[in-house]
Amino acid sequence: MRKRSNKRSSTPLRVIPIGGLNEIGKNITVLEYKDDILIIDCGMSFPEDEMYGIDIVIPDFSYLVKNKAKIKGIILTHGHEDHIGAIPYFLKQINAPIYGTRLTLGLVENKLKEHGIRAKMNTVAHGDKVQLGVFTAEAIRSTHSVADSICWCIETPAGRVFHTGDFKVDYTPIGGAPMDFARLAELGSKGVQLMLCDSTNATRPGYSMSEQTVGITLENIFRNSETRIIIATFSSNVHRVQRIIDNAVKVGRKVAISGRSMVNVVNISMELGYLKVPANVLVDINKTKNIPDKELVIITTGSQGEPMSALSRMASADHKAITIKKGDKVILSSSPVPGNEKTVSNVVNKLFEKGADVIYSDIADIHVSGHACEEELKLMHSLIRPKFFMPVHGEYRHLKRHAQIAESLGKDPSDIFILENGNVLNLTSNSAEITNEEVPAQAIYVDGLGVGDVGNIVLRDRKLLSESGLIIVVAAINRSSGTICSGPDIISRGFVYVRENENLIDQARKLVTKTLERCCEENIKDWNALKGAVRDDLRGFIYKKTKRSPVILPIFLEV
Amino acid sequence: MRKRSNKRSSTPLRVIPIGGLNEIGKNITVLEYKDDILIIDCGMSFPEDEMYGIDIVIPDFSYLVKNKAKIKGIILTHGHEDHIGAIPYFLKQINAPIYGTRLTLGLVENKLKEHGIRAKMNTVAHGDKVQLGVFTAEAIRSTHSVADSICWCIETPAGRVFHTGDFKVDYTPIGGAPMDFARLAELGSKGVQLMLCDSTNATRPGYSMSEQTVGITLENIFRNSETRIIIATFSSNVHRVQRIIDNAVKVGRKVAISGRSMVNVVNISMELGYLKVPANVLVDINKTKNIPDKELVIITTGSQGEPMSALSRMASADHKAITIKKGDKVILSSSPVPGNEKTVSNVVNKLFEKGADVIYSDIADIHVSGHACEEELKLMHSLIRPKFFMPVHGEYRHLKRHAQIAESLGKDPSDIFILENGNVLNLTSNSAEITNEEVPAQAIYVDGLGVGDVGNIVLRDRKLLSESGLIIVVAAINRSSGTICSGPDIISRGFVYVRENENLIDQARKLVTKTLERCCEENIKDWNALKGAVRDDLRGFIYKKTKRSPVILPIFLEV
Repeated sequence: MRKRSNKRSSTPLRVIPIGGLNEIGKNITVLEYKDDILIIDCGMSFPEDEMYGIDIVIPDFSYLVKNKAKIKGIILTHGHEDHIGAIPYFLKQINAPIYGTRLTLGLVENKLKEHGIRAKMNTVAHGDKVQLGVFTAEAIRSTHSVADSICWCIETPAGRVFHTGDFKVDYTPIGGAPMDFARLAELGSKGVQLMLCDSTNATRPGYSMSEQTVGITLENIFRNSETRIIIATFSSNVHRVQRIIDNAVKVGRKVAISGRSMVNVVNISMELGYLKVPANVLVDINKTKNIPDKELVIITTGSQGEPMSALSRMASADHKAITIKKGDKVILSSSPVPGNEKTVSNVVNKLFEKGADVIYSDIADIHVSGHACEEELKLMHSLIRPKFFMPVHGEYRHLKRHAQIAESLGKDPSDIFILENGNVLNLTSNSAEITNEEVPAQAIYVDGLGVGDVGNIVLRDRKLLSESGLIIVVAAINRSSGTICSGPDIISRGFVYVRENENLIDQARKLVTKTLERCCEENIKDWNALKGAVRDDLRGFIYKKTKRSPVILPIFLEV
Repeated sequence: MRKRSNKRSSTPLRVIPIGGLNEIGKNITVLEYKDDILIIDCGMSFPEDEMYGIDIVIPDFSYLVKNKAKIKGIILTHGHEDHIGAIPYFLKQINAPIYGTRLTLGLVENKLKEHGIRAKMNTVAHGDKVQLGVFTAEAIRSTHSVADSICWCIETPAGRVFHTGDFKVDYTPIGGAPMDFARLAELGSKGVQLMLCDSTNATRPGYSMSEQTVGITLENIFRNSETRIIIATFSSNVHRVQRIIDNAVKVGRKVAISGRSMVNVVNISMELGYLKVPANVLVDINKTKNIPDKELVIITTGSQGEPMSALSRMASADHKAITIKKGDKVILSSSPVPGNEKTVSNVVNKLFEKGADVIYSDIADIHVSGHACEEELKLMHSLIRPKFFMPVHGEYRHLKRHAQIAESLGKDPSDIFILENGNVLNLTSNSAEITNEEVPAQAIYVDGLGVGDVGNIVLRDRKLLSESGLIIVVAAINRSSGTICSGPDIISRGFVYVRENENLIDQARKLVTKTLERCCEENIKDWNALKGAVRDDLRGFIYKKTKRSPVILPIFLEV
């Protein structure tokens, strides 16, 4: 039996995922040792269907605000929104230096500019080590669907903690070297105490395909097209954009860029040298009219069918510069993110209706995932061979499956830790355990300028309003004399067409008048009692007549 | 050159799809010849995300109501909701006899009972012919994911019209014979003027798998499980349910049924002899406590993660009879219908969290589609060899792809007709063309008891309310003296937490007071002008402060 504690590690390292567990998105992990805190990534997520009116969701920073003084820095794995998107909101509350690769920081910079914020940014390259308090963090080259992705290996007083970030194993990445397998194996041999590993594709067997395979499909399409080509993909997938531009150049086509985020990322990537575009290839999206169709490629945002994106606007004949015409070849180089299937097929249908020839994931191999599938995860586990393992980045089913994969490789189930956001894992040089402590780790809703001012009660109201609308009853009452001076009036929104239901509204008004008169007779003068009586009577009446339950809002004025 | 018209066919047959085109659901097709109308299917569809509060969507019956006297009957292809679900709403407006196979009518009967409606129902068997006005309709045995499915071949004065209904080619269906290929080929040889053919899976290459393959996967799972098995599937898939029960019997397990529609369909299918269950196998869902786990199978609804379904309630620990426990094997024998992916994975996650071992479509082959894929469609086209072809049942991308498949078989593009709901195809014995006529074919929303009383304006209001909530400004005003007698008060719902934003609400109240005072000074007495001024001022203020646009509702009372 190993001893469960010893002198050297009597103070445990605290590993706290504040976001990214039991969800896809808002990834952020905290390492805390005595007076030092290191943060890995700081992402946002997109709202679920029932989060009415919410723009984005960010992590709960309250634990970090409380321990502000301890924070030594944020280290970033790569430049996707679910890893960097919450940084502006973080920096509005907490000042901390940021560490990442050039492209990652370029994307952060762009984001901060939009928010009018400055930060201390520190560029790291693969192999660099950064000293942050007691922590020494080493950047290790990785591969993912955005260029310049890294894993982090952090030396802590409790041993090495290895965080994969998002990754896939691509032996032939476009425009770059593959993962630094040698260094991963070396770290594995030296001994890694805890690994946190991406679980997004844990339920997919086999391997993800190399980005090169997409390039081959695209090349075939480009070679065989005599018409205009419009191609949508994730703006952050610089490799994909590079491959599209390469193919365009090969077949002698010009390239125009559409969509704000695509324009931004292309500019940043060109400036930083991640995207190589020969002179005279790029043309302004507003100046494509005179270019023959077979000499033009348009790269656009909107591969997820986002309603305001450039591609959606083209599909709805609402794009300023581009009008879809018969024969246009439109390629959606992406797979729908779960939840977006409907919006994507809406856009596909509209494009087909306009006469375009649409190529999308149902039809051809025009996208590969950026996340490791089962066999790639096994490779990572086999290289790092961590003592303890914590699956991260995924819904519960992904984390659970990832744990099963680790077990299939011989890992003892008691050395695997599936946490929830806000849980604390205590790690020492010879033990790991989930504590009873819970750190605040709610989803914080951003709606317009408001951060966190829309919570569950407001959302519940929005849901109720969206389901059956509302009925407002308004009257001016003199309570001392017990007389209704004006009203009751009935106003509704989102309930029924009033014009076609005058009779129903009229009956409702009579009912409320009776209720108010009865209350006055009975000398009921308390506003709440009065409102309650009106609400109850009206709710029963409306439900009986329509089987609906609109929000009922009695408003009385004292006159 | 063939002549485009001749004496015999001077009056064309009118083929009118009122639903089922450019959508998945609410399938209904009208054949009209002079004073005779025949209706094929009468289905409903489920609301899209943006149809806030809508329960179901049904076809627009107004053309049929107008031509009520001509209607000779409704013939049904099979018993799925998207083919029979709107019958009760139809019968509330129009009386017409219904023709279908025994199981189909059993499912209709059950539906009519819930609505308290009776109808004249006529059972047909494979091979039967029914005379309806000028039309002679023949029922032909088919295969689909519900038992007792048929195609219809209708002799009309303009020639034979063949409607596949929903189908797949299953050479080894469970508990039944395969499609009547001989009869299909015979009809093809005799000559079919127009074919309407299911397009749901037109974008999927290859073949759909036989229902038998699912049986094999299930048998393996049943043989290797020592724990309780809970299995969710579509209640209408009687074949699947039969196979589950067969497997349960094989391994000596009892079967309990959970979920209203599953109980209904199992009862109807047993009564009609479509489902064969040995004695003493079924047990009451409320009496499973004393049965050892390894001797029990529970068949349940909820394979689409529907929030109120039995499986969802089990996952949320909200089911009266069944509590999920560690080790339970839960099988979702279905694929998520597009749009349901998120709700399905929510249920899967919750079940995993409760310790269940969940098997779902990501992990194993536990579902096959009921719709023909590309090669099966080619078989149907090759057997029927219609002169004209009209793809039905599908979004535009499916219809378009189906047209391409027909072209790949040598069909002349000018003989293929992609219609929209409400279009009219004129068919004669030697021609077909889409007319300029448009028959009303809107989506009719059912919300509670209301049919069609919620339209786009009401939905737009619900959407606005759901996005940012609303602010109500209320005041009692004496216009003749120009004095504000009470208020203005500000009430909000779904906007912000009022308690934490008292300051904002207070500022808004002051602003509105100023606006009203200014209006009174300027002697503005028109209610609309007054409301407009308040709305404009408040909207600007709120947007500046919050970047949100709640609905603003000024309500003034004259006192």
